[in-house]
Amino acid sequence: MTDARAVTEELARFASELSWDDIPGTTRAAARRTAGNVLGLAVGASRHDAVERALRSLTGLGLHGSSSVLGRSERLAVTWAPLVNGLAMHVEDFDDTHLRTVLHPGAPVVPAALAVAELRGLSGQDVLTAVVVGVEVASRVGNGLGTPHFDRGWHVTGTMGHLGAALAAGRLLGLDPERMRHALALAATQAAGHTEQLGSMTKSLHPGKAAADGVEAALLAAGGFTGPDGAIEGRRGLAALMSPSVDLDAVVRDLGSTWETDDNAFKPYSCGIVSHPVIDAAVVLRERGIDPARIRSVEAVVHPVVLDVMGVQEPESGLRSKFSVYHCFAIGLLDGAAGPAQYTDERAADPQVVELRRKVTATLDPSVAKDACTVRALLDDGTTEEVVVEHATGSTARPMSDDQLRAKLDLVVRPVLGDGTDRFADLAFGLDQQESLDGLLAASRPS
Amino acid sequence: MTDARAVTEELARFASELSWDDIPGTTRAAARRTAGNVLGLAVGASRHDAVERALRSLTGLGLHGSSSVLGRSERLAVTWAPLVNGLAMHVEDFDDTHLRTVLHPGAPVVPAALAVAELRGLSGQDVLTAVVVGVEVASRVGNGLGTPHFDRGWHVTGTMGHLGAALAAGRLLGLDPERMRHALALAATQAAGHTEQLGSMTKSLHPGKAAADGVEAALLAAGGFTGPDGAIEGRRGLAALMSPSVDLDAVVRDLGSTWETDDNAFKPYSCGIVSHPVIDAAVVLRERGIDPARIRSVEAVVHPVVLDVMGVQEPESGLRSKFSVYHCFAIGLLDGAAGPAQYTDERAADPQVVELRRKVTATLDPSVAKDACTVRALLDDGTTEEVVVEHATGSTARPMSDDQLRAKLDLVVRPVLGDGTDRFADLAFGLDQQESLDGLLAASRPS
Repeated sequence: MTDARAVTEELARFASELSWDDIPGTTRAAARRTAGNVLGLAVGASRHDAVERALRSLTGLGLHGSSSVLGRSERLAVTWAPLVNGLAMHVEDFDDTHLRTVLHPGAPVVPAALAVAELRGLSGQDVLTAVVVGVEVASRVGNGLGTPHFDRGWHVTGTMGHLGAALAAGRLLGLDPERMRHALALAATQAAGHTEQLGSMTKSLHPGKAAADGVEAALLAAGGFTGPDGAIEGRRGLAALMSPSVDLDAVVRDLGSTWETDDNAFKPYSCGIVSHPVIDAAVVLRERGIDPARIRSVEAVVHPVVLDVMGVQEPESGLRSKFSVYHCFAIGLLDGAAGPAQYTDERAADPQVVELRRKVTATLDPSVAKDACTVRALLDDGTTEEVVVEHATGSTARPMSDDQLRAKLDLVVRPVLGDGTDRFADLAFGLDQQESLDGLLAASRPS
Repeated sequence: MTDARAVTEELARFASELSWDDIPGTTRAAARRTAGNVLGLAVGASRHDAVERALRSLTGLGLHGSSSVLGRSERLAVTWAPLVNGLAMHVEDFDDTHLRTVLHPGAPVVPAALAVAELRGLSGQDVLTAVVVGVEVASRVGNGLGTPHFDRGWHVTGTMGHLGAALAAGRLLGLDPERMRHALALAATQAAGHTEQLGSMTKSLHPGKAAADGVEAALLAAGGFTGPDGAIEGRRGLAALMSPSVDLDAVVRDLGSTWETDDNAFKPYSCGIVSHPVIDAAVVLRERGIDPARIRSVEAVVHPVVLDVMGVQEPESGLRSKFSVYHCFAIGLLDGAAGPAQYTDERAADPQVVELRRKVTATLDPSVAKDACTVRALLDDGTTEEVVVEHATGSTARPMSDDQLRAKLDLVVRPVLGDGTDRFADLAFGLDQQESLDGLLAASRPS
């Protein structure tokens, strides 16, 4: 255990003092990929029903401002824009994952950085520096709280997202270490989000609110608003309240010399990540030419967390189908894909999908890795097809390449931006080359 | 245990359907007192340093709107006004307490109701109906989570305040039971606030954010944004996450026929409520003519919760002195009062106060009731003066009268409103007679 004061203070100092020059090339690249990926997702989901409903609720009240909503012409106040952007980045469950904590850091952190950078006219390198700050802080505190934090039912993207968003925003506001500590205290005491909400619109409100609250916390701290010293490690602070098993050393060990940002993985499929091995297996079966009509039953041998998170048997909506390993197998085999088009209300109710997913059972085996699975399909002639996935696409062992990430962005953005997609993609993945965000934000809006 | 679905749904139905005609006279009176008390406190604290800092942070960014900040000319957006009003109502620790849960319901609930009522041009009876909804929901879920919720370190005013604020706002937006359930889900997953933050400005941000998030949750639900069914009682919902010992029956038992609002108690002293018996005792010693200079030492025999919450020995600020039973005794004896003037930075550093509070020790005795204490002062001639307080002023057994509440409002409001104080007090305590809030809000602003 570090001493009682150190963690909150050390994180605040790190966030206040980190500069672009301190960040190694691999981590800069990871930050570029993290930002580009969710920027594309926000544009892609900018007409999603949940986004439309949130925007309608806010703009109907005259809650306009000067901050950009990606892919839209509306301008909102400096905390509502991140709310909508964060929501849009996460709503398709297609974003990114810090696998050790099951944190999706892009959706809470990037919108917070974006809003403050737009407000202050800052550069792309500033934004990426703040993204590294936010991802490091959120991931590292998540590491310290350990898996019991998630297992209890906390949605890490909401809880840790608050911390990352606040310090990313604080970095761009130029907070000194003391004010940064207050920003962290303000964010820590607002950290929230329950996994009970998975499969509903509110799941993606979690990173949106984390981003919004983070910006607000940093602005309040900049204005002199103060909190206590040990907001994270104090006797009744965040760590003690939110995990039964805390390792404070893990939070700050090698801070600034090893980088959690490097471990941020990108989703090839738009659903809960623990189903990704099963989708890989279904795609392999399709590639082998297995006709879905020939399937009698399917057994998927998976890590137990799969049913914990993805156990919905009869998803009644597109959002719920993202938490059904049965649905995931079915669309993987039927469509050979698992993008937003496979998780619509219509697809969740499609008779062929429903028939196939009812044939799938999951066998839980703690010895199977989270990024692995074995799938056995029993066919109508009594034979069995088996697929072993050792590491799912997009896992740490098999990361998505830059080309794959760019193709993914294209998939979601082209329906919105058409011919403008290439220019937007260049800007989204090349933030470090931009003196201001004006070009990117303009390019995100359909002409 | 009620069945898994019932609690969230039953609360939502209650909130959607309660009307002024359903509320008994005693509960109407309790709601009037609850509202009037915090309306006065908000005006009184409208120039408090924490309020100024919050306002400066928000308005400096052009975050204006059309919603009133009590006692001020600034107009903010419909969620920022409740943030500032809730903060102002709570910052002096002078508000109200639902003793069973240690919830301070006025500061999160009333600003949420006020903002929506102003937005929609609703009446004082509408506001009071919403206040009853909010206080009932927040208190009752708090009852269900029990004392372990608070003991763990959750600041009940922040956590339960979110629920009460959302349903008060939802009531005024006319949400049907289904949309109300979504508003409750949105609020539940944002419930937050750590007691680590007591003694800092952030403590009073908790009800402010609860009010703001509650309004936002209700607005989002009104716009069609949805959450899961069992946000409170679900396997990974609020109750399971926030208390190790949940009694769901207690949440909805006799809902609509017995009223927690009736049990909301009002603070005669502006500090943590568990120190109030000791202040009563100090005031009695002063009335007996005990010269502070004659005191060698003081022993206060109190319930153990006193040192748990009020154990700050050397408070370095006014806000911290509100959590020092030692400071409370000292100013009670020296000043015969314990209002905001006794908890300033100056008073916390006053040499006479410091000298006297260092003479005080607390003896913990679980057999002493929370609203009781025995104080023994050893004097310079070797004699001992003893005071036994059976029930503190403002406790359920000795509630503040309407006249006392009015005098309390006068104490805090007159420095701000001067001759306008009487008219404001009439309006603040007489909400049920007003067709619109325009008069009250105008009267809250210094001319």
